[in-house]
Amino acid sequence: MLRRPEIRIGIDIMGSDSSPELLLQAADELAGSIPPNVKLVAIGHPRLQASTSLRYKTASETIEMDDPPLTAIRRKKDSSLCVGLKMLREKELDALVSAGNTGALVSYAKMSLSMLPGLMRPALLALLPTKKSPVAVLDVGANLQCKAAHLIQFAQIGAAYQLARGQALPSVGLLNIGSEALKGTSELRMAYHELSELSKEPNAYFRFAGNIEGKNVFDGNVDVLVTDGFSGNIFLKTAEGLANLILDRINENFSGDEALHMRKHLQDLQRHLHYAEYPGALLCGVKGVVIKCHGYSSPEAFSSGIREAIRVASEGFIQILQDKLVKRKP
Amino acid sequence: MLRRPEIRIGIDIMGSDSSPELLLQAADELAGSIPPNVKLVAIGHPRLQASTSLRYKTASETIEMDDPPLTAIRRKKDSSLCVGLKMLREKELDALVSAGNTGALVSYAKMSLSMLPGLMRPALLALLPTKKSPVAVLDVGANLQCKAAHLIQFAQIGAAYQLARGQALPSVGLLNIGSEALKGTSELRMAYHELSELSKEPNAYFRFAGNIEGKNVFDGNVDVLVTDGFSGNIFLKTAEGLANLILDRINENFSGDEALHMRKHLQDLQRHLHYAEYPGALLCGVKGVVIKCHGYSSPEAFSSGIREAIRVASEGFIQILQDKLVKRKP
Repeated sequence: MLRRPEIRIGIDIMGSDSSPELLLQAADELAGSIPPNVKLVAIGHPRLQASTSLRYKTASETIEMDDPPLTAIRRKKDSSLCVGLKMLREKELDALVSAGNTGALVSYAKMSLSMLPGLMRPALLALLPTKKSPVAVLDVGANLQCKAAHLIQFAQIGAAYQLARGQALPSVGLLNIGSEALKGTSELRMAYHELSELSKEPNAYFRFAGNIEGKNVFDGNVDVLVTDGFSGNIFLKTAEGLANLILDRINENFSGDEALHMRKHLQDLQRHLHYAEYPGALLCGVKGVVIKCHGYSSPEAFSSGIREAIRVASEGFIQILQDKLVKRKP
Repeated sequence: MLRRPEIRIGIDIMGSDSSPELLLQAADELAGSIPPNVKLVAIGHPRLQASTSLRYKTASETIEMDDPPLTAIRRKKDSSLCVGLKMLREKELDALVSAGNTGALVSYAKMSLSMLPGLMRPALLALLPTKKSPVAVLDVGANLQCKAAHLIQFAQIGAAYQLARGQALPSVGLLNIGSEALKGTSELRMAYHELSELSKEPNAYFRFAGNIEGKNVFDGNVDVLVTDGFSGNIFLKTAEGLANLILDRINENFSGDEALHMRKHLQDLQRHLHYAEYPGALLCGVKGVVIKCHGYSSPEAFSSGIREAIRVASEGFIQILQDKLVKRKP
């Protein structure tokens, strides 16, 4: 029998808005239901080591949510966040999951792991539900303002991500305020033109579907949605907020036995709605798999982020992306 | 008995993605249920005049949805859109409703009605449902990129709008990717600072609630949400798209008698969800009340836009905004 290679997932339990104890417990519970070749390694304060049966790496410091990112990564070298990324760089881990300070995670990942050859900036990618298959949205918050060249790289990264998930020739759309080629800012218009050209090349690995409005993303006609980090973050959080509003209204309108009956039927719906929040965002473009979970992750959401890290590390996303980027070289 | 002054609402029935016949019919039907002092005036092609009992103003040309706005308003002076705005300028109307070309409507409104003294740019304002009272969101598509000075004016316009609706000391939030004062672009940080200062003045007419993330807007803790037209449009359309996705899932999960039972209970929910689409957007900052309905407005949505025009014209929004702007002068 072929023995599958070991996959080691580092889990930063510190520095989020949730308690380290709860996140550690979530990881502990998950450990019983993952494939035997996957090993979880918790990274956190020494005081918590005794309370888990997982492999444990101690880190004496914690980067807090409101720490200024650049100062934090310079001063807190022994924080769980920095220690985890260094382990990833040294190949002691195959992926890292963190619910900590986003700015610190993105900056230190870029610095310590370095970018994949040919890529300029890291991006955060989130997978969202649609009426068809899920759409990969990037960037959802790492880069406030983007040039056309950055947006084009996000398209390449997103397409490689969907290829790794098994989607042949993924379709890529640009988030815009109308579908016509001339809509939006000058950077968006340049990106539109360039993506049209790229998708016509003989070795193209994605199809360009043009501009997509916010209301059409959920129809599921694109596999990758490209946007700058400001608009992407607005998009992601608006979807989350509206889902909450609707669930609230449903709960208001149904009570007692009827509510029970409803909830049974709405379980699938709820799971899908919360999906946006669940697996966390993938930090793309750096040499390593890093999953950023929400700062206020529930134990369930955190477990979902860990499962996503296992999936991305197993599917070879980084290798596929690297291959595609090399092919693009003249 | 005091006789209420006549309120005349112009209705541009041409140039949308819906048929002029359907929109005219919607206006005709609405005419039976509005206060007797409100008069509807349809504006459209001469061939349709015979099919309505409404007052009718003929316009021989039509600006199409895909006409380039600036060329269209220069060449099609006898279009329903241009004729309606000229009637508004000449005080032959108190408000105008159109589902036509947004760019042409905004540009020609600015040119023919001119801006209110002290304001730089028109903005599109949409009223959206929340867990509490509705929030006025602006700009939702008239200005792609904005300086801090524009955002501050949007805050003043939105606050005057909520004052006109009867909300004392409305609270204003800035759409951003985090709640901290230093989040977002430099223009957003400047706007944050300036709005903090303005709201501390002795004659302040709004409260500043700081930065608001997309997911928190629907909690209803701000009455006005200020944003540039690109992000605002993404926000609006994402909310609409997600609402559609969820209704779709609900329809999928319930069928037959159960569906009927469900729908009865979900009617209120659906009405709220579609609310975003219904009353259309108010074009603010110009000297006149202009309501822009969706290009693909259903007859029901178009009627809702007409009712919104009646409300805004009756409540004296323009006068209140003008008074507040004058007070701000040194």
